[in-house]
Amino acid sequence: MAGNTFGKLFRVTTAGVSHGPGYLCIIDGCPAGLPLSVEDLLPDIRRRKPGQSKLTTQRKEDDLPEIWSGVFEGKTDGTPIGLVFRNGDQRSGDYGDIKDKYRPGHADYTFDAKYGFRDYRGGGRSSARETVCRVAAGAVAKKLLAREGIRVLGYVKQVGSVVADIPDPTAVTLEQVESNDVRCPEPDAAAKMIALIDEARMDRDSIGGVSELVAVGVPPGLGEPVFDKLKADLGKALLSLPAVLAFEYGNGFRCAEMRGSENNDVFVPTSGEGDSSPTIRTETNRHGGMLGGISSGEPIVCRVAIKPTSSIPRSQRTVTREGEATEILVKGRHDPCLLPRFVPMGEAMVALVLIDHLMRAKCGRLSG
Amino acid sequence: MAGNTFGKLFRVTTAGVSHGPGYLCIIDGCPAGLPLSVEDLLPDIRRRKPGQSKLTTQRKEDDLPEIWSGVFEGKTDGTPIGLVFRNGDQRSGDYGDIKDKYRPGHADYTFDAKYGFRDYRGGGRSSARETVCRVAAGAVAKKLLAREGIRVLGYVKQVGSVVADIPDPTAVTLEQVESNDVRCPEPDAAAKMIALIDEARMDRDSIGGVSELVAVGVPPGLGEPVFDKLKADLGKALLSLPAVLAFEYGNGFRCAEMRGSENNDVFVPTSGEGDSSPTIRTETNRHGGMLGGISSGEPIVCRVAIKPTSSIPRSQRTVTREGEATEILVKGRHDPCLLPRFVPMGEAMVALVLIDHLMRAKCGRLSG
Amino acid sequence: MAGNTFGKLFRVTTAGVSHGPGYLCIIDGCPAGLPLSVEDLLPDIRRRKPGQSKLTTQRKEDDLPEIWSGVFEGKTDGTPIGLVFRNGDQRSGDYGDIKDKYRPGHADYTFDAKYGFRDYRGGGRSSARETVCRVAAGAVAKKLLAREGIRVLGYVKQVGSVVADIPDPTAVTLEQVESNDVRCPEPDAAAKMIALIDEARMDRDSIGGVSELVAVGVPPGLGEPVFDKLKADLGKALLSLPAVLAFEYGNGFRCAEMRGSENNDVFVPTSGEGDSSPTIRTETNRHGGMLGGISSGEPIVCRVAIKPTSSIPRSQRTVTREGEATEILVKGRHDPCLLPRFVPMGEAMVALVLIDHLMRAKCGRLSG
Amino acid sequence: MAGNTFGKLFRVTTAGVSHGPGYLCIIDGCPAGLPLSVEDLLPDIRRRKPGQSKLTTQRKEDDLPEIWSGVFEGKTDGTPIGLVFRNGDQRSGDYGDIKDKYRPGHADYTFDAKYGFRDYRGGGRSSARETVCRVAAGAVAKKLLAREGIRVLGYVKQVGSVVADIPDPTAVTLEQVESNDVRCPEPDAAAKMIALIDEARMDRDSIGGVSELVAVGVPPGLGEPVFDKLKADLGKALLSLPAVLAFEYGNGFRCAEMRGSENNDVFVPTSGEGDSSPTIRTETNRHGGMLGGISSGEPIVCRVAIKPTSSIPRSQRTVTREGEATEILVKGRHDPCLLPRFVPMGEAMVALVLIDHLMRAKCGRLSG
Repeated sequence: MAGNTFGKLFRVTTAGVSHGPGYLCIIDGCPAGLPLSVEDLLPDIRRRKPGQSKLTTQRKEDDLPEIWSGVFEGKTDGTPIGLVFRNGDQRSGDYGDIKDKYRPGHADYTFDAKYGFRDYRGGGRSSARETVCRVAAGAVAKKLLAREGIRVLGYVKQVGSVVADIPDPTAVTLEQVESNDVRCPEPDAAAKMIALIDEARMDRDSIGGVSELVAVGVPPGLGEPVFDKLKADLGKALLSLPAVLAFEYGNGFRCAEMRGSENNDVFVPTSGEGDSSPTIRTETNRHGGMLGGISSGEPIVCRVAIKPTSSIPRSQRTVTREGEATEILVKGRHDPCLLPRFVPMGEAMVALVLIDHLMRAKCGRLSG
Repeated sequence: MAGNTFGKLFRVTTAGVSHGPGYLCIIDGCPAGLPLSVEDLLPDIRRRKPGQSKLTTQRKEDDLPEIWSGVFEGKTDGTPIGLVFRNGDQRSGDYGDIKDKYRPGHADYTFDAKYGFRDYRGGGRSSARETVCRVAAGAVAKKLLAREGIRVLGYVKQVGSVVADIPDPTAVTLEQVESNDVRCPEPDAAAKMIALIDEARMDRDSIGGVSELVAVGVPPGLGEPVFDKLKADLGKALLSLPAVLAFEYGNGFRCAEMRGSENNDVFVPTSGEGDSSPTIRTETNRHGGMLGGISSGEPIVCRVAIKPTSSIPRSQRTVTREGEATEILVKGRHDPCLLPRFVPMGEAMVALVLIDHLMRAKCGRLSG
Repeated sequence: MAGNTFGKLFRVTTAGVSHGPGYLCIIDGCPAGLPLSVEDLLPDIRRRKPGQSKLTTQRKEDDLPEIWSGVFEGKTDGTPIGLVFRNGDQRSGDYGDIKDKYRPGHADYTFDAKYGFRDYRGGGRSSARETVCRVAAGAVAKKLLAREGIRVLGYVKQVGSVVADIPDPTAVTLEQVESNDVRCPEPDAAAKMIALIDEARMDRDSIGGVSELVAVGVPPGLGEPVFDKLKADLGKALLSLPAVLAFEYGNGFRCAEMRGSENNDVFVPTSGEGDSSPTIRTETNRHGGMLGGISSGEPIVCRVAIKPTSSIPRSQRTVTREGEATEILVKGRHDPCLLPRFVPMGEAMVALVLIDHLMRAKCGRLSG
Repeated sequence: MAGNTFGKLFRVTTAGVSHGPGYLCIIDGCPAGLPLSVEDLLPDIRRRKPGQSKLTTQRKEDDLPEIWSGVFEGKTDGTPIGLVFRNGDQRSGDYGDIKDKYRPGHADYTFDAKYGFRDYRGGGRSSARETVCRVAAGAVAKKLLAREGIRVLGYVKQVGSVVADIPDPTAVTLEQVESNDVRCPEPDAAAKMIALIDEARMDRDSIGGVSELVAVGVPPGLGEPVFDKLKADLGKALLSLPAVLAFEYGNGFRCAEMRGSENNDVFVPTSGEGDSSPTIRTETNRHGGMLGGISSGEPIVCRVAIKPTSSIPRSQRTVTREGEATEILVKGRHDPCLLPRFVPMGEAMVALVLIDHLMRAKCGRLSG
């Protein structure tokens, strides 16, 4: 019950389905005094938007958010921010077949099993369209983080067998990420990924991949042991996104094959240019910026795996609601690869976790 | 702030440090009427206990829990279960050097950065000894789950380069897991793992690995979209454990290289032996028992990567609290590989998530 | 921070201000399968509506709710219910003076002190118009409660010095309450109250009162000691409403003058007509239906005091934002007495507490 | 379910029963750096202790708390504070009769109805002995509040028909409160109250009363509309204490008979001696220090009614667990009046609310 709120101090609550009037998003706990307008939300919303390129679904969504409350005279006023997204382009005829048959890889069956019935139109509540709320809330979080010198950036690291070589994740720029349709900052890999996605699309199939997410400027001390560790909350946030099957940070799964002497990062003094720089760092960042579940001051680096789109334009075996064997051909317009549009979603969830933990950490020490 | 409580309806709160009088654990929300005694907690506590074999630390902990409240005349009575673990074997001289130097891979620096100072004795609150509370609470959760026909079992899947071949995770038995010191149910792999751990230990080093966790009998319908999806809460739960760097379920990271037609599980009718069996299943279980973040009725299968022990008995470079370069030789008795003792911890966290979501799901439909 | 969500399992989150586009209300956790339409919400919304009679403000609000999500084919589907209320009648010129001066009895100064500035238009977030969300959510809760045989009813017990004599609160009917403008079920007292309110209005003043709230059919066992006792959550719920200064249940403040032998309710066997009737009751109900913070099965009876409207159409001394002495004449259309419109608000909060605790109590015992 | 945790940022979780080994209390979220020892907890624990005078129960409890964690080298270290209270004096023979009969005014029947059975020894979890945890946690909160210049003080305002005349609640000192056994700062009223309690005791009866609680130095801006208003959380906190039937602040129930012109407090400029003094105050404090549910900077003044002790040493009618009429004579040693020992409990709950809201308010504005 009641799983539609995220965060403890910076709280996001959403409602809405893809084929109803629209989505509601309430951000509760945003500090007062932040300049905010619809324009602040649009860049990331556009990066998430369907129909950006041939790599993404050709479905069109208007996605223009409206700020109904929480902003007064151009600044947040400390009261809950109410966002409204009206649904636009709904081809109501597209979902006839999914009413009675379960799409493989989708939540149709599990929603029915959970609630007894479901809004089958466009996936109802399980539609990834709800992530537009997360991306908007994440844009607010990013703006708050920027004031503290924290920047969150994601990109596509892998599509199918193509893995981009990105030796320094912290050197990647937004411009590099946005320079191509697949959002991979390494141009050669990007070209190969695009070809691979196109190939999958031509084969009436889809393909998976990996996104890497980086946060720089995160001060040491974020994360609340023993259960609300920063790594745990980042994992939860990213795994709550549709199609994410895996999460790792730092060395991640590779640590299984390593020895302690290879995996440990040794501490080193910093040259100490300027007063504000931290005086202690690690020589390497195999720990992905978190030790004991608390940020170390090193960049946070994590990765998630996104499965190939479950909706593929070919006939698949399945069963009806009554349990009889049948076939289904999922209609509609779907992304052949979810990765390009995932990037702003992933960034949003990282930003929501960081702002929440930043606010929590401020309570950790006595003032004065 | 305040990160020491886990769960929404079945809530576990812990306090304590490794070198104080002991640990406190309060389980709030356990239904009334469950037969419960210390004996129910002991098996898993013993599996977690240090000093079981040469593969684990030779440190001795008594770990005998006391039930102070919540159980009356042999049954839980609906009021909070209060558990007490007294600390035993504390070699107070062991931690002299870690007071002023930061151990690589540990939370010493991040705790200092967070709170201004730290209890350095044995790692203080960051000591993995706190997991004894989780394992005890998990044992209560397991007993509740067993009444619903749900069983949680973990084992070691990989140590270093040795990966056990376990074609059917649901066929693994507790007896197989407990049949060797490394807790790998495949005997040949187990033997190789043991050799590998021993080799690392002889080299004054440590080694990482992967644990696989399986839950069978989970009914369809657990998990609360859009944020408290079952996959998200499992990820958080397991990532909150010490040394866990990665989490995946079903195809996990392998999905990145797959196509939709390879990754999707098709639905099939079941032969339907008996009334209570589910009538709809999937032919394969690449989805690890969760679709749309909700359990599908198929077994839940997930994996986590555990890093090689950070404490290795060799000198490592580091800095002092004042930021000066130095070396540290971490004394004490440490596991050369964390995997064998991780298994009950991982099971406990999975059990805590499942009981919490089972209770939440019961509110999801109108009765009658 | 983040105080705009109410409830643990049946969760209501609201946003909106009186002079923006409207209000958003998200109900998360409503069980699936409840028939629900806008018509279910309208009766209580109309009882709360301004401009019902000369006893209430002549301000007009449209208050027609829209259900944007959570209802499919006429029934709740388990996903969050999204409600939208568009603001209608906004006389934007009315609030000029309150921008720079603090209205006595209002939250103008405290909002400024809290956030640094405030949306002064019509009180912004402190406007009682936000209670329209609560009343709508309460109507959903009431419908769920009705399925369990629980009915919540409120009425006006006192206005100024006029106290209605209502010997059996459980015998009051909705028809009696709605039979007059002041919502007092005792006709003679109602007439005197109406005269008193009219007198206050003529004097350019306002007047306070007491509302009594009754819930019948509440099963024994609701309430979660030691902190989330039913009495505590009812108190919080009602005190969270604007203008409520006091809460009591059962004997309430009168218990201060009583002896234990006068205040205790003795238990008696019931005649036991029918299987489903409780077998144990109390002879009297001085305890207002709660013992040890848990419902006893007897009717829940509580009372709240509502202060006289702070906005009175006469000049009052105050200070400017800069702290200089001045006078203010609060314009606009205000209720001379808040009591008549309070009744549905009070009922809503009681209903929200009861449904939340009913859902929580279901987890308290093992099934089977 | 799970109602044994209080607070959002400063969180108190308790377990334990009166006739088990003892109580556990975990305080999660206390900032690091606060000097703390058992001695800080003792004064309030002693004020709560049974057997202080002939006005209170002659039962003896040792009540010496042990700090098991969260304090290192004399200061809180940011990790959860674990407190342990061992139960001492338990006359196990005292509770034979209450096993099968329901004590009037107690929670025996409601616990049975809720959970199916109960720990009947000494009231089990419903024993007021659990408040020793609250008082200890409150002492920590008070110490934090004192650093911010906030002081919380309670006293007995009324016993039976004797009402103390205390024109300026903020002028009352701890010394005055502690100068007599009944904890009423007005000596004449105190003498009459003592006589009244003694009279009730001689009559084998008990008597109720009112406690007034005052917090001075509270900055404006605490409280989180619209649901977590300060008045709402204070009400919940105090109503969660055993035997509290009513809560009011400021004019409280008296506002029902008042007009707006009588109830409003006008704002006035302050003389402004010193930089740190607030520049805006109210001329009177009928609003009890809260406007719109947010603290105004004026002293917080509230009152609660405490019922006469339900356990009276005389035979009362009741029923058995099977619902048969019988009589019960409650044995044991009970307070003839709960008021004197209530004072530290009430202060503790006010302090817990204030520290929690102080921490929450710090997140409300952007820094810098």
